[in-house]
Amino acid sequence: MTEIDRLIQYLAKLPGLGPRSARRAALFLLKRRESLLQPLAAALAEAGARIHPCGICGNLDGADPCAICRDTRRDAALLCVVEDVADLWAIERTGAFAGRYHVLGGTLSALDGVGPAELNIEGLLRRAANGATEIIVALDATVEGQTTAHYLIDRLGPLGIAVTRLAHGVPVGGELDYLDEGTLSAALKARRPLG
Amino acid sequence: MTEIDRLIQYLAKLPGLGPRSARRAALFLLKRRESLLQPLAAALAEAGARIHPCGICGNLDGADPCAICRDTRRDAALLCVVEDVADLWAIERTGAFAGRYHVLGGTLSALDGVGPAELNIEGLLRRAANGATEIIVALDATVEGQTTAHYLIDRLGPLGIAVTRLAHGVPVGGELDYLDEGTLSAALKARRPLG
Repeated sequence: MTEIDRLIQYLAKLPGLGPRSARRAALFLLKRRESLLQPLAAALAEAGARIHPCGICGNLDGADPCAICRDTRRDAALLCVVEDVADLWAIERTGAFAGRYHVLGGTLSALDGVGPAELNIEGLLRRAANGATEIIVALDATVEGQTTAHYLIDRLGPLGIAVTRLAHGVPVGGELDYLDEGTLSAALKARRPLG
Repeated sequence: MTEIDRLIQYLAKLPGLGPRSARRAALFLLKRRESLLQPLAAALAEAGARIHPCGICGNLDGADPCAICRDTRRDAALLCVVEDVADLWAIERTGAFAGRYHVLGGTLSALDGVGPAELNIEGLLRRAANGATEIIVALDATVEGQTTAHYLIDRLGPLGIAVTRLAHGVPVGGELDYLDEGTLSAALKARRPLG
């Protein structure tokens, strides 16, 4: 196998790239040796060497504890439980959350053989018992996400801490007649005073 | 900027990956440190150091002359002119061509300021004058491709070598009623005895 074939083979494993687009990406890189190929190789090597999961919350960062866990301006008593670092990033982009996170690393799934022991749940219980005042369960509104949320409520309940979830409702900018019935009826039930 | 942001920034420059899919790819890589991130970084570094354009045909390869130009079983008198290495790969995948290639590195385009001097045309004329018996012009059936093809015919004509182009016609597996009129009339004109 040539160097190019090997490069294409690894690029094709990335999500969003198939064999065809991996070939295109490989050529694109080889034509931009100095401006893209070499910097990308260096960025990969550096990220591979430096980025690790935070021992406290599971976030990926160049330092342990991570930048969020070290940030004393953030409320250490308010924990937001997410499935994955991608969800943590999504919430960080809103700029609307000033607490800290806890990354579970997945959701419970009997089908995929993911039980409580596979998730970072013991760490969450330790943190919860250690001064947390509210735990926001920000998991996907899917069957697995909601199963996991209910499991967490069962485990966190005895600690007497407020456990909350994200609101359901009409997406901002969303049109009612494109919305599914479940979301619409949840938005109706949770209606708020206008203005 | 953190190591992760830098990695995402470079991944987002790849064709087919936007900012969102670059974030997904970065996380995917960081979760597969040994099986994907490190091998990809190594493959990139190796390709960047070893792969160069062939001095004869312009193909990208770890050796110069490239593997195709060194292959004595391939007919050195039959040259296939392509725009780009991607087109060379596409023709190689057919397994239907046993000659050698000449990569122009683009097509003539007044709009993009690409003139004959920007393309590897002098090299082609040298090779053509040096024992070639047939030159297949395998350029895209677009305005730029066909403009370039006509320019090549003008330049190659005086050498008295056969200059051919790819056949136009119905794509194998194609349905007639989805075909554009140009292709269909070209296929009609170039009709062949049945069976």
